[in-house]
Amino acid sequence: MDYYSGHITKLIEAFSSLPGIGAKSAQRLAFHVLNMPLEQVDELTEAISQARRNVKYCKSCLTLTDEEMCPICSSSKRNHKQIMVVENPRDLAAYEKTGKYTGVYHVLHGAISPMLGIGPGDIRLKELMQRLQGDVDEVIVATNSSLEGETTAMYISKLIKPTGIKVSRIASGVPVGGDLEYIDEVTLLRALEGRTEL
Amino acid sequence: MDYYSGHITKLIEAFSSLPGIGAKSAQRLAFHVLNMPLEQVDELTEAISQARRNVKYCKSCLTLTDEEMCPICSSSKRNHKQIMVVENPRDLAAYEKTGKYTGVYHVLHGAISPMLGIGPGDIRLKELMQRLQGDVDEVIVATNSSLEGETTAMYISKLIKPTGIKVSRIASGVPVGGDLEYIDEVTLLRALEGRTEL
Repeated sequence: MDYYSGHITKLIEAFSSLPGIGAKSAQRLAFHVLNMPLEQVDELTEAISQARRNVKYCKSCLTLTDEEMCPICSSSKRNHKQIMVVENPRDLAAYEKTGKYTGVYHVLHGAISPMLGIGPGDIRLKELMQRLQGDVDEVIVATNSSLEGETTAMYISKLIKPTGIKVSRIASGVPVGGDLEYIDEVTLLRALEGRTEL
Repeated sequence: MDYYSGHITKLIEAFSSLPGIGAKSAQRLAFHVLNMPLEQVDELTEAISQARRNVKYCKSCLTLTDEEMCPICSSSKRNHKQIMVVENPRDLAAYEKTGKYTGVYHVLHGAISPMLGIGPGDIRLKELMQRLQGDVDEVIVATNSSLEGETTAMYISKLIKPTGIKVSRIASGVPVGGDLEYIDEVTLLRALEGRTEL
C-alpha cells in the first residue's frame, strides 16, 4: 500500500475495514472522496457521526431508531398483540416494504449459531419473553431460512409453547418468479412438504 | 426508506451516493457503522475528513499526495527522463506494484471521451507538454486499453511526435494466464498484430 501517501493509505484502510468492501472498491471509494466537494465530504462524515451517536434501541421492539420508542411501536394503528420476530432491522424493513403486515416486531439482533459461539443468551430473547407477559395473541417467527435462523426458530417455539401463545413460522418454499431448475434441493423439498391444497 | 428513522435514512443515503454502493450495500454499511465502537467510527470520519483536506496534487506528476511533490518525483533513484502517462493514481499504483518500472509518471486525471464531452483541454495534457520542455528521453503512454484510452494515446502521440521525443505505447494482447477461448475478438486480433518473433 505504500504506493499511496499516508492520508490516502489510511483512508483506503478505513474503507477496507467495512463489510463487503475489498481492496479495489476501497481504492475507488477513497479516490472518489478525494474528488468530492468539501461540503459533500462533511455531510458524509456528519451523517456517519450523528447516526452513530444518536441512534438507539427502541425500548419495546429493540429496532434501531432516533426516539425512545420506534414509530411502529408507538403507532396505535398497529396490532400490538401480533409480534413478528426478526433477526435484524433490515429484515424488519423488508417486511415493512410489503406494506401488508399490521402487527409489531421484535428484533433479536442475531441468531443462535453454535458455530460462531452465539447462544440464546447472546440475542434479545429475554426481552421477547418479557413482552409476552403482556397481552399477546401470536408470535410469528420470521428469522432467516438459514441453519442459524431455523435453529433460532425452533428454540423460540419451544420456549413459547408452554405459555399457550400461538407461535407460527413464515413459510419456506420456491420464491415467487423463481425458476425450479435453479433452486436448491432443500428448498424444493421444503416447498413440497409445505404444499397447500388448491 | 421511511422504514428507518431519520438518522439511519440519512446515513443510508450518504452511503448510496458513493460509487459502486447500491441500496442493499448501503443498508449493510449503515447498520455496520451503527454497531461499530465509537472510537472506530471517529477514526473513519477522521480519515475521510483529513484525507480530503490534506491531499494535494504532486506539482510535477499530478498524482495525489500529502506533500508538494510525491515520493516518486522526489526520488533520486528514479529515471526522470522516462515518463509513463497514466489516466489516474490507481493506474500509477498498479504499475508501482510490479516493482520493475524505474521511471516517473504523469497522471492525466481522465481520458479524452467525446461521448462524455471530455476533450483534450479537460485532462492534464498541458502540464505534460510543459514537462517535456525539460530533459526527457521517452514518454510511455499507459492509458487504458479502452476506446477513451486509445483515443487519448493517439492524441498524445500526435502531440509529442513533432518534439522528437520517443513515444511508446504499452502492448495490448492476451493477459498472462488468459484462456484464449474466453478472450474477445479485438484483443485476439491485437495479440496477433503485436506478435513477436521467438
